Amino acid sequence: MSLSGRRRQTAGAARAAGVEALLVTHLPDVRWLCGFTGSNAALVLVCAGRMRAMLFTDGRYTAQAKAEATGVGVTIAANPALIAACEWLAETGVARCGFDDGNTTVADLNQMRKAVPAKLRRKMFEPVGWLVAKLRWVKYADEIAKMRAAAALGCRLFEGILATMQPGMTEDAVAAEMEFAARLAGAEAMSFPTIVASGERSALPHGRATDAKLPRRGFVTLDFGVVLDGYCSDMTRTVHMGRASAAERDVYDAVLEAQQAGVAAARAGAVTGDVDEAARSVLRKAGLAEWFTHSTGHGVGLEIHEGPRLATKQTQKLEAGMIVTIEPGVYLPGKFGVRIEDMVLVTAKGAEILTPCTKAWIEL
Amino acid sequence: MSLSGRRRQTAGAARAAGVEALLVTHLPDVRWLCGFTGSNAALVLVCAGRMRAMLFTDGRYTAQAKAEATGVGVTIAANPALIAACEWLAETGVARCGFDDGNTTVADLNQMRKAVPAKLRRKMFEPVGWLVAKLRWVKYADEIAKMRAAAALGCRLFEGILATMQPGMTEDAVAAEMEFAARLAGAEAMSFPTIVASGERSALPHGRATDAKLPRRGFVTLDFGVVLDGYCSDMTRTVHMGRASAAERDVYDAVLEAQQAGVAAARAGAVTGDVDEAARSVLRKAGLAEWFTHSTGHGVGLEIHEGPRLATKQTQKLEAGMIVTIEPGVYLPGKFGVRIEDMVLVTAKGAEILTPCTKAWIEL
Repeated sequence: MSLSGRRRQTAGAARAAGVEALLVTHLPDVRWLCGFTGSNAALVLVCAGRMRAMLFTDGRYTAQAKAEATGVGVTIAANPALIAACEWLAETGVARCGFDDGNTTVADLNQMRKAVPAKLRRKMFEPVGWLVAKLRWVKYADEIAKMRAAAALGCRLFEGILATMQPGMTEDAVAAEMEFAARLAGAEAMSFPTIVASGERSALPHGRATDAKLPRRGFVTLDFGVVLDGYCSDMTRTVHMGRASAAERDVYDAVLEAQQAGVAAARAGAVTGDVDEAARSVLRKAGLAEWFTHSTGHGVGLEIHEGPRLATKQTQKLEAGMIVTIEPGVYLPGKFGVRIEDMVLVTAKGAEILTPCTKAWIEL
Repeated sequence: MSLSGRRRQTAGAARAAGVEALLVTHLPDVRWLCGFTGSNAALVLVCAGRMRAMLFTDGRYTAQAKAEATGVGVTIAANPALIAACEWLAETGVARCGFDDGNTTVADLNQMRKAVPAKLRRKMFEPVGWLVAKLRWVKYADEIAKMRAAAALGCRLFEGILATMQPGMTEDAVAAEMEFAARLAGAEAMSFPTIVASGERSALPHGRATDAKLPRRGFVTLDFGVVLDGYCSDMTRTVHMGRASAAERDVYDAVLEAQQAGVAAARAGAVTGDVDEAARSVLRKAGLAEWFTHSTGHGVGLEIHEGPRLATKQTQKLEAGMIVTIEPGVYLPGKFGVRIEDMVLVTAKGAEILTPCTKAWIEL
């Protein structure tokens, strides 16, 4: 889908929400709608009558905005982009403009109101929530191709690091090697701070790499992702240094079974809460559910955390083209933890795993 | 200053702002006040009567919150941390609680109001702006020590990469080498996407590294920083590959003179707009001011961009203990650009440069 096609889709959704224009300030939304990747931007999409779009940014991005933002007007504003956008909006004759109240601060809304004439102020801005972000949940073919590439790079990083990991190496060094390889392979960045959690630290679901040394015996959880061409990957594997105990192996097998059950439950039409329950119930039967302390997954795309959420009691249905993670884990405080995560593409027939590297038991 | 001292300082500022409690949700503020580094947190600081603080987070962070957040209560909430915090707040008897309207979304404020009893709803939450963030602008001795270490690591990265850079190497490879070295030296992350902008791309003020190759002749701008022990560094150097033209050399010299003028103007009591003007006026005299398209600098700390802003017409005064960047640049579209940036500590006597590696003309 071309960017202008995305804007037409968005304008339709905005009209359905009862507004004549949209003020878009969340940067991933701006990028998705017009291609601009700068760090300061406000995009106005006039949806009533002939569709128009104008991007506002600052003088640091003059050349970049011209190069990236195709098919929209570009204004380099001397005042803040948000204010310039609202002033322009007021001149278009639009009387009711949607904004994302989930990504707009209270202070910014006050600024927005002050930037339009007093007679428009009270009714101009209408909260429409994550209108653009929700459209982004379902990926277009070109986005899926980019996410496939990002996920495939993630797999290569995992396979590469297996050859390098050994007892005594620090978690930081493991992260450094993976991030170096990611960069050389073209990644713009990691999609979040790399998690390398070894030994007892594997019981921390979000244990960023530290100077702790990989143990001679114990788990190492690797949770990481790259940003490639703007799109994020996300995957987790847990491997064991040295010989494991039966208890460690049992937990691993239970988490793996839960993860596979989650993947098996994910398909277009499935309810996100049911996918969570499919994974969670496996751990419940194994007596481990109380140690599975987070949700089963989340959408991924231009942002590392997008909707939908795959969590208890969520009622959102999965749709074909959504890309989500399936990542149950078990964390035994002071002992060890295991998490296994794939990124999957939802289709009518089921979930296609985009991170197909092995989840088999690995002892290094 | 101990964390409890910071909380007392904050409570005093909150009382001065007319509120009995603070709801703190901006993560760097939470970290600064209680040490917790997780990605989901809400901290309530009751300032009236006996000071109390309670941190709310979720089950992923049970162990981490206990380990990190010292001197405050910790509640692992089943519902969103923000909601749990507001429900607890309502039970404390506090009738008026400050919140940061510059970091709270419109949707979150609605959720906050719904989480307290109807009779409290209308008056409970009072916007107090960046109350905590502003306290963070002035660094304590322990923070200055950490920022010194982060800045020193930045300098070592620059000196290291000089030995590696050569024509034909990609910008991505330059960034990869620097980031690898940073990680091995203990950096948790880079403080922002590394900028390596070579040849014509040096005219992009925010030109992230790409697969473009370093030219045989032309500028390369390196703008990068590390996160070390939570604190960010930020510096820029521009070097030249091969022999430069007289025009290139003239621009470099003008930017260097402007940067030094900015540093010379920065001291406790100086007005930020005047520091900006000190740098800008040098470029004006050189006929280059129209190509200096951004502000002169910004505060740095737990966040890469903090206040104060060193920009045209800003009236904020610098205070001893602030750490800010001084980073004028000149960008000639389609030709080349030069930026030079130090991170400096403001003192009563002047600005101490924390990134003391050479700014002399370098040809590689």
